[in-house]
Amino acid sequence: MAPLQLDDLRESLIRQEETIIFALIERAQFKHNPTIYRDNAIEIQGFDGCFTRFLLWETERIHARVRRYTSPDEHPFCDNLPPPILPPVDCPQQIVDTDININVEIFEHYCYRIIPEICVAGDDGHYGSSATADVTVLQALSKRIHYGKFVAESKFQQSPSVYARLISTGDATEILAALTHREVEERLYKRVELKAATYGRDIGESDEPVKFKIAPDKITDLYRQWIIPVTKQVEVDYLLRRGTNKVNT
Amino acid sequence: MAPLQLDDLRESLIRQEETIIFALIERAQFKHNPTIYRDNAIEIQGFDGCFTRFLLWETERIHARVRRYTSPDEHPFCDNLPPPILPPVDCPQQIVDTDININVEIFEHYCYRIIPEICVAGDDGHYGSSATADVTVLQALSKRIHYGKFVAESKFQQSPSVYARLISTGDATEILAALTHREVEERLYKRVELKAATYGRDIGESDEPVKFKIAPDKITDLYRQWIIPVTKQVEVDYLLRRGTNKVNT
Repeated sequence: MAPLQLDDLRESLIRQEETIIFALIERAQFKHNPTIYRDNAIEIQGFDGCFTRFLLWETERIHARVRRYTSPDEHPFCDNLPPPILPPVDCPQQIVDTDININVEIFEHYCYRIIPEICVAGDDGHYGSSATADVTVLQALSKRIHYGKFVAESKFQQSPSVYARLISTGDATEILAALTHREVEERLYKRVELKAATYGRDIGESDEPVKFKIAPDKITDLYRQWIIPVTKQVEVDYLLRRGTNKVNT
Repeated sequence: MAPLQLDDLRESLIRQEETIIFALIERAQFKHNPTIYRDNAIEIQGFDGCFTRFLLWETERIHARVRRYTSPDEHPFCDNLPPPILPPVDCPQQIVDTDININVEIFEHYCYRIIPEICVAGDDGHYGSSATADVTVLQALSKRIHYGKFVAESKFQQSPSVYARLISTGDATEILAALTHREVEERLYKRVELKAATYGRDIGESDEPVKFKIAPDKITDLYRQWIIPVTKQVEVDYLLRRGTNKVNT
């Protein structure tokens, strides 16, 4: 396998924070619009599910055709996607293929927990714009969370004997403890809060008091209470499934 | 026709600045990738055009099906889109139907003038991500620029006799002069520069000198040299085509 550079991973994870924050802010300009999350509340012939799911499925069908999901850092939400119409590219294999995909959980949590938290309640009729924004957030969250596979592999490569021992015991709690660095996490939360406060700031023309499109602590809480814990769950699952082999780097 | 509230228009235009700036910043994380703008450089069976155009076309096909282009503030880039699969909604008619659509010009200007300006030169292989980001920027620019129709209609409604006289002379230069408010424009450029500087700021952990994802003056220049002039061109064209009737409000 190609070796993983922790600095590259770190840089990508930090840049993904902007993508997630921008996407959440873009979604939050529209109201909750619960209709788009209720199965078949908007009837679409030949489709069974909610409107956001429909737009996600159609988008993934395009992206599958341009080979998005042949990349190991991309995970589709939907099944039965069409094959790529472009020839395959030769990606360096950097992680073990484990089939981990927690997008079912991500979709549920996003639609029914995050959306009511960040959007104003009610219905403004902007169903298409809201669902299009949903697709962008969902794809960004999925990429961020499944990046845990790369993080876990790089940690294994840094301390193969430590992790091999933990993996062989199969103790998920111990593995989670080994992966956890409180100080690094706290730095991340601080950075996310600063980004949320900067990028989510309303910029008027006068000296009005500062207003935010989404309260910064809501975005920090989202990282603290959900994104980071589920990412670490992906890391643990990945290590348990990858096995203890020191893969050739 | 339903009356236009200038405050609503203004609020929407100001909010669209964020959407455009976020979308440009998202695109600029990838290199120029000129391959995606060269017709058939990426061969796709049954499609004649560049890769970004292909993704735009496929996206518009989905959006047409969920009736995006039945809304008077949305304009497709592509022809021969499928009909909506959802029943029509009753939009209040706020502008006269004029068939103005300058997306050909917007597409060309974006791909061949804006992209080389905001992206680092070269090829990083992120074709799918770049083209997906392109679609978001193109849709945001198109919406902003064609909003000129609403702005022009509201100005007509504010001073119908002034504009009726100008329209009857057919003098585009005079109409442009009447629509132009230097002071308002200068306030807009200042606000855009402040937004670009705030939202485009790199946020590190230490006291490094401030870095930007896109230099703020590039975004201000884009507004000053292109977005505002072409929006005003849409406004002039709209007024010339709408005629001089005081439509019932």
